[in-house]
Amino acid sequence: MTEFELIARYFARPVHERQGVGDDCALIDAGERTLAITTDLLAEGVHFFRDVDPASLGHKALAVNLSDLAAAGARPRCFLLALSLPPPRADPAWLEAFSGALFELAGREGCELVGGDTTRAAAVGAADGPVTVCITAIGEVERATLRGRSGARAGDDLWVSGELGDAALALAHARGEVRLGPQQARDCERRLLWPQPRVGLGLALRGLASAAIDISDGLVGDLGQVLERSGVGADVQVPQVPRSEALRAVERTLQLRCLLAGGDDYELLFTASPSHREAIFAAAQHSGIGITRIGSLTKESGLRLLGESGIDATLRGFDHFAGTCQGPPSFDPTRRT
Amino acid sequence: MTEFELIARYFARPVHERQGVGDDCALIDAGERTLAITTDLLAEGVHFFRDVDPASLGHKALAVNLSDLAAAGARPRCFLLALSLPPPRADPAWLEAFSGALFELAGREGCELVGGDTTRAAAVGAADGPVTVCITAIGEVERATLRGRSGARAGDDLWVSGELGDAALALAHARGEVRLGPQQARDCERRLLWPQPRVGLGLALRGLASAAIDISDGLVGDLGQVLERSGVGADVQVPQVPRSEALRAVERTLQLRCLLAGGDDYELLFTASPSHREAIFAAAQHSGIGITRIGSLTKESGLRLLGESGIDATLRGFDHFAGTCQGPPSFDPTRRT
Repeated sequence: MTEFELIARYFARPVHERQGVGDDCALIDAGERTLAITTDLLAEGVHFFRDVDPASLGHKALAVNLSDLAAAGARPRCFLLALSLPPPRADPAWLEAFSGALFELAGREGCELVGGDTTRAAAVGAADGPVTVCITAIGEVERATLRGRSGARAGDDLWVSGELGDAALALAHARGEVRLGPQQARDCERRLLWPQPRVGLGLALRGLASAAIDISDGLVGDLGQVLERSGVGADVQVPQVPRSEALRAVERTLQLRCLLAGGDDYELLFTASPSHREAIFAAAQHSGIGITRIGSLTKESGLRLLGESGIDATLRGFDHFAGTCQGPPSFDPTRRT
Repeated sequence: MTEFELIARYFARPVHERQGVGDDCALIDAGERTLAITTDLLAEGVHFFRDVDPASLGHKALAVNLSDLAAAGARPRCFLLALSLPPPRADPAWLEAFSGALFELAGREGCELVGGDTTRAAAVGAADGPVTVCITAIGEVERATLRGRSGARAGDDLWVSGELGDAALALAHARGEVRLGPQQARDCERRLLWPQPRVGLGLALRGLASAAIDISDGLVGDLGQVLERSGVGADVQVPQVPRSEALRAVERTLQLRCLLAGGDDYELLFTASPSHREAIFAAAQHSGIGITRIGSLTKESGLRLLGESGIDATLRGFDHFAGTCQGPPSFDPTRRT
């Protein structure tokens, strides 16, 4: 059973709220405002290593939630933190580093901590229990500029922000699958451990993007979500997908895996009418984040990866319950060329 | 370091929102509405056993959050679910039982699941990783009837709903500290595993209760929170604290420990002016939940447990990081008689 199947089978129910399970954020109306709400749980051994720098964990736990708000075009407002810690980790040095980085990002993005829950993680056998961090972030969206994963239309341009694949490259380096130079290794590790949520860009794209998602599970998997929810297909020009010099230098199979299915990018993938191209470049410039047009949407369903021959058909996003790389359930790898 | 000290030192910052860290719910204004938001994390080995009935876990994970909304007098609206599951537990029988009970309570209380996150729990050594459930619930409060932990006044009556101590008695039975008859054991276990959030009573008390809290860490610890935040003291008539026949029948030391410091009661503790007594009885009758007046608030600070001699001065609420029973930091046990 994949994560998508698990959610679809056991947890997806019709809702009266504006937008429910399956998008980056839930949307609920409160008077004349609409609130975007998102939750992400980071678990030791899955999302971070046991010896993680607590500062990067504090930063990343909030950053991945702000990235969801960015996709929704929401302005961050406040968040709640639930933290399960084994008692040996509840020491001043760990907590100072964790909370310091958390509050630094929160302050920069204008997002206040308003509540939470702390609990001891029970030991598992002779080992300390795992650290678990669950943050719920709340933002505000203007009702006129609401967007989710389902608004993409055939003919729209397909865009991404920043560069993809460096976080996955850092993991490959840590696993010894590739050997990077010291500076490149540090740069890539920074992308993995200190992702920068594209909040300003997400806001600047209000009224321009027809759909958006943040790339957390890899370009192919997350794009598949948009295509499925919007009922369209896509042609992606693989050579145009932006990547760092470090990633360009590694061998082709690993390069394409990191680029297309790497995960942990926390860049924005968005769609927009070609008539908005100039406005979109202006919005990106205003927010200081580079963007690249990587393809276009088609009436014909399916995702076509063009410009590279022989791309591994198993390239997909990471799936927690398949324990491997998987696409969404209705995503058809046979459609790719 | 206690849980209260940990929160105060590392996570409590002044906020612009209406109410932040330290109450049952955060309160945020959205147009003419005020939203109450709360999050609770339930961790295996701390809040439930590894062989927990998944149906009771699904119920309880939502119930403890709805109990926080009840304390705030909020009408439940929607919730987000983050679930970390070891792959062996992600089987249809477990998930059907968990989600079935979750949605049954959600449906009964009019609270929709609108979003979430599912992740695999990594193995710890040779053992499965622990199940972790984190729910964030959102409710609506009328601004005119907002209440928290800080509104109690000297002279107010002190009330509790239902009966206290049976959940703790079930734990004592499971640990072999006491031997209950089969029917009593089942009744107490039901209180531990299937707590019923007092949402209807919480709503009925709008405009009547001056402060309220749900009793999750034991009467003495949670009352201490209200007293400290409100700057008042209390006289509690211990013989009047309501308890079941099962709890009445066990020996005095264990009985008082379960009753006053047991935790997991999920009853409401609230304060109100004596002028509201008739209206409060009517509200309770309307919501179908019994209530009992157990004491009154005093100008003199401190908590006095009256009517029983020689109560153990270490009776306090459960603290996760002290790993033992602890009161809030400024709570002075020497004031008790």
